[in-house]
Amino acid sequence: MTEKTRVLINECIGQEGQGVTLKGWVKKVRHLGSISFVLLRDRTGEIQCVLEKKWAGLKLETESAIELSGIVKKTQQTSLGVEVLADEITILSSSAPLPFELSKKTLNAGLDQVLNNRFVSFRHHKINTIFKLKALFVNAFSDFLTDKGFTQIFTPKLVSQGAEGGANVFTLNYFGKEASLAQSPQFYKQMMVGAGFERVFEIAPVYRAEEHNSSRHLNEYISLDVEMGFIEDFRDIMRLETELLKSIFKEIQESFGDELAEYKAEIPIISEIPELTLKEAQKVLKDVYKKDSPVGDLNTEGEKLIGRHIKEKHGSDFVFITHYPAETRPMYTMPNKENPALTDSFDLLYKGTEITSGGQRIHTHGQLLQSFESKGLNPKDFSSYLEAFQYGFPPHGGFAIGLERIIYLFLNLGNVREASAFPRDCDRLIP
Amino acid sequence: MTEKTRVLINECIGQEGQGVTLKGWVKKVRHLGSISFVLLRDRTGEIQCVLEKKWAGLKLETESAIELSGIVKKTQQTSLGVEVLADEITILSSSAPLPFELSKKTLNAGLDQVLNNRFVSFRHHKINTIFKLKALFVNAFSDFLTDKGFTQIFTPKLVSQGAEGGANVFTLNYFGKEASLAQSPQFYKQMMVGAGFERVFEIAPVYRAEEHNSSRHLNEYISLDVEMGFIEDFRDIMRLETELLKSIFKEIQESFGDELAEYKAEIPIISEIPELTLKEAQKVLKDVYKKDSPVGDLNTEGEKLIGRHIKEKHGSDFVFITHYPAETRPMYTMPNKENPALTDSFDLLYKGTEITSGGQRIHTHGQLLQSFESKGLNPKDFSSYLEAFQYGFPPHGGFAIGLERIIYLFLNLGNVREASAFPRDCDRLIP
Repeated sequence: MTEKTRVLINECIGQEGQGVTLKGWVKKVRHLGSISFVLLRDRTGEIQCVLEKKWAGLKLETESAIELSGIVKKTQQTSLGVEVLADEITILSSSAPLPFELSKKTLNAGLDQVLNNRFVSFRHHKINTIFKLKALFVNAFSDFLTDKGFTQIFTPKLVSQGAEGGANVFTLNYFGKEASLAQSPQFYKQMMVGAGFERVFEIAPVYRAEEHNSSRHLNEYISLDVEMGFIEDFRDIMRLETELLKSIFKEIQESFGDELAEYKAEIPIISEIPELTLKEAQKVLKDVYKKDSPVGDLNTEGEKLIGRHIKEKHGSDFVFITHYPAETRPMYTMPNKENPALTDSFDLLYKGTEITSGGQRIHTHGQLLQSFESKGLNPKDFSSYLEAFQYGFPPHGGFAIGLERIIYLFLNLGNVREASAFPRDCDRLIP
Repeated sequence: MTEKTRVLINECIGQEGQGVTLKGWVKKVRHLGSISFVLLRDRTGEIQCVLEKKWAGLKLETESAIELSGIVKKTQQTSLGVEVLADEITILSSSAPLPFELSKKTLNAGLDQVLNNRFVSFRHHKINTIFKLKALFVNAFSDFLTDKGFTQIFTPKLVSQGAEGGANVFTLNYFGKEASLAQSPQFYKQMMVGAGFERVFEIAPVYRAEEHNSSRHLNEYISLDVEMGFIEDFRDIMRLETELLKSIFKEIQESFGDELAEYKAEIPIISEIPELTLKEAQKVLKDVYKKDSPVGDLNTEGEKLIGRHIKEKHGSDFVFITHYPAETRPMYTMPNKENPALTDSFDLLYKGTEITSGGQRIHTHGQLLQSFESKGLNPKDFSSYLEAFQYGFPPHGGFAIGLERIIYLFLNLGNVREASAFPRDCDRLIP
């Protein structure tokens, strides 16, 4: 028995007169007298299939998986320009009635419905697009960095309790010891830079046991981590992130078209990303918007307003906020040379929301010990990390991008959960 | 002030007479009268730097990070063909005495020493190679599949307790509920195939709370997961894995040379991978080696012997073992049509060790329910997974490769831990 080779829907274009075997899902069935029209969908697109009289008795449930053989015909009636006149149909797997209608352009279902019924909602073109885009984003991220001499690394998510100190950590029993789930690969990526890899990146989940259920936060998300050695200063890191984002959005532009329009998503124009020191940003908020900021930081509203201010003034969706004070940054952050109360650190805001924290890190053992102690931390709890700095650790820095965060902002999704296949929040552990 | 642009060591070739600024680590210092020779290492290679009389007083500790400017000169004395006559040297970060010698061709340190001092051992060329190779492996995996229409997915590692049923699961308190760490993305990758992605892959950590401390097992490792819809049968999956491995090893061959020789690692010749049914394999073990096998499986010794047998008979490092009985395979495994006591499943052995489990999965709701019940499982505990099969789930299958496992076998490392940057076993949670 010779199997018929499957042809993908987008491969039917220009195949007029050819016999093809398609496999996919029944998106819609429409009857017109004794003829039925089946809109068939596979991962590459949709095609109209014409079922003549002989199929009149066939019961074809929407969203059933089928195999359909027939002849490709020219048509003026569909945007594809071709349709298939069905000759053989096999139902591979029939579908029960759907929890909600899938064939409309925009899905008419609430967020909980969408997330609880992922096995159905994923099938909708607009939702499918989110995850195709996410895959492309990661691929472009990886390609850019690999090309620049970065090595992809894989560091443990099960870490020794205390390694990052503090709050918002999930803990578990690991063969009688207390382990926690990594909040970031920070220590490990630094150690690998210092131990000769020089340039590393990681694409992996991180965990935050934060109780707040906001539209911008997930308790498990993919962190795109980058760390680079032998830098001159933290502007090298900002330049790297700027070039990286340019490259990723260029790839997105080349691969996606109409799908972006459906989301009113615009490719951001990135030349040089505007910068404000935190102090300047806080002054803008005070002077222009009459808003106070928390000490050493911006709040959610402040970020939004600064985003709007920069967009109006410079036309940029992005803005770097720099020079956060040492007291609001982690113990490994490099103090500023001129003003050691400040740090050589930055956040990157996109559309008024933080998508990145980054900066230069302390690279000498003595200075790092001092910094840990000044934060009230016991160096003994961090000895495996601190030891690494005794063996010629070069100046270095890095950043991390929250993957779901940037996707959700780019596509103007209402909630970051929509950019996660199976999001985890305080109430959601299933599916 | 204009910064000097850093030149990488491998960029010095052919730059005779040019001034360059190098950054890297001092691998070795050798004094010859009033002249010193510094072997400098960066991520691209090593170069000899000549320090003339004026540097006589300079104290340069091995493995310090330095910046060195000078003129590139031709030389017959090094394999690179060039050296650098030093003009300016800045010590960026000095090194303390090393826990073990790094400049020998093979590292003279025990496994525990290597793993406890990763920040030093990573710097050794041979060890560095393992992780460069790992990155390339993953990149080639991703490229091959993306090219074949697969979408990279990101599924949660925090899952509802019970989702995979049973033993060897790490559990934790997730906002008052019991969560567990995913043993595999099996259910999620299937759901995404069925929900329209058709072809997916994931590169992510998985967790096994197994107590045994063998040289082949890790408690956290990277699983390279693949799942494909609209297959004819499980041989489509085996063909896919064969082509995938061919492509990955071709990329490795093109990118690595001497490094592989150092490990006596040979690129496996893959044409068609030989197949044995489990029954045939057990018969070979009985007839040729007088060895009994456990019911429905091979043991470690059996895998080794079958690996050896196939290597001798077919010259292949790989062998598929097929048709495991239903009782030793998971509840989602597709029974064989001719003999439902067997399944359309396979393991792939490489050098006599299992690197993959795979097969076709059950895709109809009724059959799946039955299979869960026949294994004594309560379908209610798996409702979010089972529901997905009501909506036109196509025939599908997939497999997973243990990343560290295949790297360690390929490079003939003595222990799988050597292929993990920061391995996790029963005793090891730090660094």
